[in-house]
Amino acid sequence: MRTDVTHFRCSVQDGIAHVALDRPDRKNPLTFDSYAELRDWFRDLAYDDAVRVVIFGSNGGNFSSGGDVHEIIGPLTRMSMKDLLAFTRMTGDLVRAILSCGKPVIAAVDGVCVGAGAIIAMASDLRIATPAAKTAFLFTRVGLAGCDMGACAMLPRIIGQGRAAELLYTGRSMSAEEGERWGFYNRLVTQEALDGEALTLARQIAAGPNFAHMMTKTMLLQEWAMGLDQAIEAEAQAQAICMQTADFTRAFDAFVAKDRPVFEGN
Amino acid sequence: MRTDVTHFRCSVQDGIAHVALDRPDRKNPLTFDSYAELRDWFRDLAYDDAVRVVIFGSNGGNFSSGGDVHEIIGPLTRMSMKDLLAFTRMTGDLVRAILSCGKPVIAAVDGVCVGAGAIIAMASDLRIATPAAKTAFLFTRVGLAGCDMGACAMLPRIIGQGRAAELLYTGRSMSAEEGERWGFYNRLVTQEALDGEALTLARQIAAGPNFAHMMTKTMLLQEWAMGLDQAIEAEAQAQAICMQTADFTRAFDAFVAKDRPVFEGN
Amino acid sequence: MRTDVTHFRCSVQDGIAHVALDRPDRKNPLTFDSYAELRDWFRDLAYDDAVRVVIFGSNGGNFSSGGDVHEIIGPLTRMSMKDLLAFTRMTGDLVRAILSCGKPVIAAVDGVCVGAGAIIAMASDLRIATPAAKTAFLFTRVGLAGCDMGACAMLPRIIGQGRAAELLYTGRSMSAEEGERWGFYNRLVTQEALDGEALTLARQIAAGPNFAHMMTKTMLLQEWAMGLDQAIEAEAQAQAICMQTADFTRAFDAFVAKDRPVFEGN
Repeated sequence: MRTDVTHFRCSVQDGIAHVALDRPDRKNPLTFDSYAELRDWFRDLAYDDAVRVVIFGSNGGNFSSGGDVHEIIGPLTRMSMKDLLAFTRMTGDLVRAILSCGKPVIAAVDGVCVGAGAIIAMASDLRIATPAAKTAFLFTRVGLAGCDMGACAMLPRIIGQGRAAELLYTGRSMSAEEGERWGFYNRLVTQEALDGEALTLARQIAAGPNFAHMMTKTMLLQEWAMGLDQAIEAEAQAQAICMQTADFTRAFDAFVAKDRPVFEGN
Repeated sequence: MRTDVTHFRCSVQDGIAHVALDRPDRKNPLTFDSYAELRDWFRDLAYDDAVRVVIFGSNGGNFSSGGDVHEIIGPLTRMSMKDLLAFTRMTGDLVRAILSCGKPVIAAVDGVCVGAGAIIAMASDLRIATPAAKTAFLFTRVGLAGCDMGACAMLPRIIGQGRAAELLYTGRSMSAEEGERWGFYNRLVTQEALDGEALTLARQIAAGPNFAHMMTKTMLLQEWAMGLDQAIEAEAQAQAICMQTADFTRAFDAFVAKDRPVFEGN
Repeated sequence: MRTDVTHFRCSVQDGIAHVALDRPDRKNPLTFDSYAELRDWFRDLAYDDAVRVVIFGSNGGNFSSGGDVHEIIGPLTRMSMKDLLAFTRMTGDLVRAILSCGKPVIAAVDGVCVGAGAIIAMASDLRIATPAAKTAFLFTRVGLAGCDMGACAMLPRIIGQGRAAELLYTGRSMSAEEGERWGFYNRLVTQEALDGEALTLARQIAAGPNFAHMMTKTMLLQEWAMGLDQAIEAEAQAQAICMQTADFTRAFDAFVAKDRPVFEGN
């Protein structure tokens, strides 16, 4: 997987990619360039087996301050509808790319996590945060609607329709404690422990079965708006596919040998 | 917005409409007339810019006791199927009208909030309650099913499928504490504070951006059963529309001037 | 309702069926035979009025250890795709049969509740557990995906998308306390109280209105992926049907007579 990126930090070790926005002095805003490069990077990820899990981390005590006011919001106020739609589609395509990259994404959130930053956390599969995490869908504060990059669809499914509505209408900050209690954050850990805990979780998932994890991720998206009867048939097919992977046999063989399975992702 | 209504209380001040059922001696039951008049009022609201937020309040210590047993349930037991369907469609149309009125609706719930009263609270965008709030979907107690006015679709999305199933099968009361813990109520406040807190929240939302709030409300409904890919494209379009409002520019200009934006709803 | 089953325990008393897997020495695994027999039994239930509620109970301190490793997983590793799909469809058909049997199903969970056992609990309408309940969707541990028997569709709707993702990717155990806090379990009770509490709840629901309960169950499934407008019309029709049952009139007559209604399920 390419790590020679320009507009965000990126490294890969032992199948785990670490990415983070990289402007800690300004709490890591997104720019046109970082949006586009992140979108392309996550798109490429779908075809790359060297990366098995992604950690989207914080940097300098913050996750992201969202779309930069000067570099993004200013220009947007002067754009044509054609260019505005091109922009909102690009941001939506970043979410799509995260959702369909085939690898579990873990957001490790410290400090400010707002606007498009909160969306990136929301679009991740798992979310760990520190007590200092302040998460806000503050589109309303800049005169915009809560329907940004899929928030009106995804946030209600994570924390419930009523809580999502409050955050989207008011733009208020969700505290870390609320985030854990409401199911947005899977767990809270201290700032010192954040990176280590994210890595431990990433390693656990990276140990596989990775083909099966890809299928889990695929079906969570695929079944979003399916009838339950259709979802059950879709899972019958998806799981039958997984039952023909060697990893399934490896797990059974290990069980018989009273051993731990070593998955190979096929 | 017309406030000359007959079957419920209604007043408008500073862009905030206060409505409440008005038979406090009987805990504010709904009647055929109040159903129809509420439906018409919320329908008209979609075209009225003078109202920016609605508070659906309690009256005399209770929100609503639901469909009146003598005035509604009695007659229903003697109706033809044609008339029954006309009735259930009318009640469903009240929910539809609340969902599509384009203005955030805040339910301020004290005391009894049951049957169709609980449905009105459920169909609101935000819900504040007092510790005395007793919320029950008690259709089952009158021999009916939990599938009333959209409850089998909406309640699971607010509090989760398992909790919703329990309330709908048993008709049992959800305590205020459960309501807050489960995400039905956004917040609990004392009885003395209820009206004031609802008004503060209403004012905050009424300050705008109101066109964007309308879009948030529209998309929360619109994306209910969309695939996530489709929802993301839908939001790209909806947000691009909002980016061509003057409120978006007002927010940016205020930010640059280190000022608070004054939104005008266009 | 037939109770002469071979591969699980089954008895019926006062309209309440008790079923449980029956291999307590091995924590009640499922086998090819018990899957198929359970599926057939729940399918037949749709046409049987003698049973009004089902309790799916634990046995010997455990609910179920899921698909038996030796009797199921071993053979699966050697099957053709045709036979694998026949198997995953059979397991999915058990979930479908539970969802469409027309009778509320109460899972009473003690001890181990994992794999397909956790799915059976998930597919039930209501869930009571003891503090000893350990619930895990551990498909990932045997090299498979979390998309098994509808889990990627149902679990997110019960406990939220983020928590479901964690359980499905990691296969980790959800504690009883988490299960209650997240809405998977409706209530926790002591081991001594489990059967009694399940029976009390079952009796309450079995007291009816049973035709209406069937309609509630039907619509919870039916509206799974409907738009909200469509769901509201669907409920207008479903409730109008219930309004022509005699149970609706019985409830009204009892109310007028200041009496408790005695429902008859029609």
